[in-house]
Amino acid sequence: MSRLQAKEIRLASRPQGEPAADNFAFATVDLPDLEPGEVLVRNAFFSVDPYMRGRMSEGRSYVPPFAVGNALEGAAVGQVVHSRDAGFPVSSWVQSLYGWRDYFIGRAQQLRIIDARQAPPSAYLGLLGATGLTAWVGLNDIANIKEGETVFISGGAGAVGSVACQLARLRGCRVIASAGSPAKIAFLKNQLKVDYAFNYREGDPREHLQNAAPDGLHVYFDNTAGPQLEAALASMRNHGRVVMCGAISGYNTPVPGPHNLALAIIRRLRIEGFIIVDHLHRMPNFLAEMIPALRAGKLLHQETVIPGLENAPAAFISLLHSGDTHTGKLIIRV
Amino acid sequence: MSRLQAKEIRLASRPQGEPAADNFAFATVDLPDLEPGEVLVRNAFFSVDPYMRGRMSEGRSYVPPFAVGNALEGAAVGQVVHSRDAGFPVSSWVQSLYGWRDYFIGRAQQLRIIDARQAPPSAYLGLLGATGLTAWVGLNDIANIKEGETVFISGGAGAVGSVACQLARLRGCRVIASAGSPAKIAFLKNQLKVDYAFNYREGDPREHLQNAAPDGLHVYFDNTAGPQLEAALASMRNHGRVVMCGAISGYNTPVPGPHNLALAIIRRLRIEGFIIVDHLHRMPNFLAEMIPALRAGKLLHQETVIPGLENAPAAFISLLHSGDTHTGKLIIRV
Repeated sequence: MSRLQAKEIRLASRPQGEPAADNFAFATVDLPDLEPGEVLVRNAFFSVDPYMRGRMSEGRSYVPPFAVGNALEGAAVGQVVHSRDAGFPVSSWVQSLYGWRDYFIGRAQQLRIIDARQAPPSAYLGLLGATGLTAWVGLNDIANIKEGETVFISGGAGAVGSVACQLARLRGCRVIASAGSPAKIAFLKNQLKVDYAFNYREGDPREHLQNAAPDGLHVYFDNTAGPQLEAALASMRNHGRVVMCGAISGYNTPVPGPHNLALAIIRRLRIEGFIIVDHLHRMPNFLAEMIPALRAGKLLHQETVIPGLENAPAAFISLLHSGDTHTGKLIIRV
Repeated sequence: MSRLQAKEIRLASRPQGEPAADNFAFATVDLPDLEPGEVLVRNAFFSVDPYMRGRMSEGRSYVPPFAVGNALEGAAVGQVVHSRDAGFPVSSWVQSLYGWRDYFIGRAQQLRIIDARQAPPSAYLGLLGATGLTAWVGLNDIANIKEGETVFISGGAGAVGSVACQLARLRGCRVIASAGSPAKIAFLKNQLKVDYAFNYREGDPREHLQNAAPDGLHVYFDNTAGPQLEAALASMRNHGRVVMCGAISGYNTPVPGPHNLALAIIRRLRIEGFIIVDHLHRMPNFLAEMIPALRAGKLLHQETVIPGLENAPAAFISLLHSGDTHTGKLIIRV
């Protein structure tokens, strides 16, 4: 093969509070010739996700921080263009964690073949990927949702939230969802068909929940923490379950804790956090439910695709703003 | 029987913040003649407990609020002095919720016979009563403690806490406990033999926990909420369990929530509240472990006995102060 160059986006400096454009840097690197067992992949899509903000800071977390000066990482799908591993023939679609770049060289243990006939490749970044699995594990394994229960999902128009809303509806739950813009509320109501949607920036979340669920919530799927967690605690039914999945309200700047946490005693609540890397073994069970539902038209594969590797930093910055820019998974087309 | 009068303590008014003497009133009432199925009981002991503060306020809780003008209620043990129920012969010892008075008339469903040969009657208010059961259910059923784990118990010298400390030690756990006075710390170290005790008013609870458990906590048994909950969250190990049993720091005045609750995600924590009335069916399993351990000298029945019905309000007020006044269960001898 001829010598190839790859473009990549690096962490130039650690953000203080909100990330800004100058925390990112573009670079071009020469790719070496393939060794036996290696494959060259051209990325088609990669996702930008809120959890990446945590990796931009120093300090202990469940994944190591990104190193300043190195390329960023994140979920990506692409096609093999050159291969020295028989398990990965040219033109097969693969999933990896080599996002934020256009080409990369990987080995078998870093790649997973995906079936692009079952669903569009980018769906493996969202509905059928770790994102969808997160929603499924949270509702199925952690909250153990049951038909007829009332479930509140904050950040309902986001990547995980939009899958959670659909899955809870599919299981026969009554779904209340929140988001931060009129366009997202319209999406929740008109496309995800949730039972009640509200804009958490308008009015008091406590009042919204009291109106939407006068008999209280069985389950709260928390993507935000902050005031919505406090409002949800106030509305939990006895023996309710709170799934702590994300805390986007505090990712850039800390937020106060819920002052009403002691309700967990009186109402016998279970509040449980999880991270998806502990639950990857559930992928087959998850896909066994999701792929048939997707093919039967019962699930909407919602994504916002932004073209151009060079636009990834701005897309990531806007993601943490909870603005009007996207619904579902936020994906960069390379 | 001759006409008998009973002395009782009533709620005179609802406390705003800390209870004061004028929230209580003493009264004398005439007791009627016994109907068939009724028994007359002379109380020997009753307990004053932090949860009663919640019942002094109006509003929704897991037990209805005390009514202003009515006698207060709480766990009591006493002896039958006159009986029109064959199941409760004269001089049998019974447990009831008719505390805060010297005599009362009760029926079978409101009374439980206790075995005063197994343990002193007042032990059925503490170690062998709902108090001990609370510690047992929290550690056994909610936290599922295992030998070798590190367990932190706040309010460790209190009624529930002092049983929890002993039970966790009995099960082979490493026990860290906190309290609010030098006398209580001495009690924790010298009598309950905990591995590490600290005064939460001296120094930063976070530093105490980091010193006491540099590898982190498997379990936190929370009797206080407030800053100690925040400190414990900061020290929890991955997959740790937080048992929310009490929140005494906020009973008189609200306290802020833990700002670091989002650690529950990264560390995969389970935070679970419970109230003992849901778990009374566990009493036989509990007594089957506790009575032999008590008779074998492996458990200390710790109580502070204050003589005189008339001293109950002051004892209750001091209880919420976490002062130097008592260790273990706080009991009034009538």
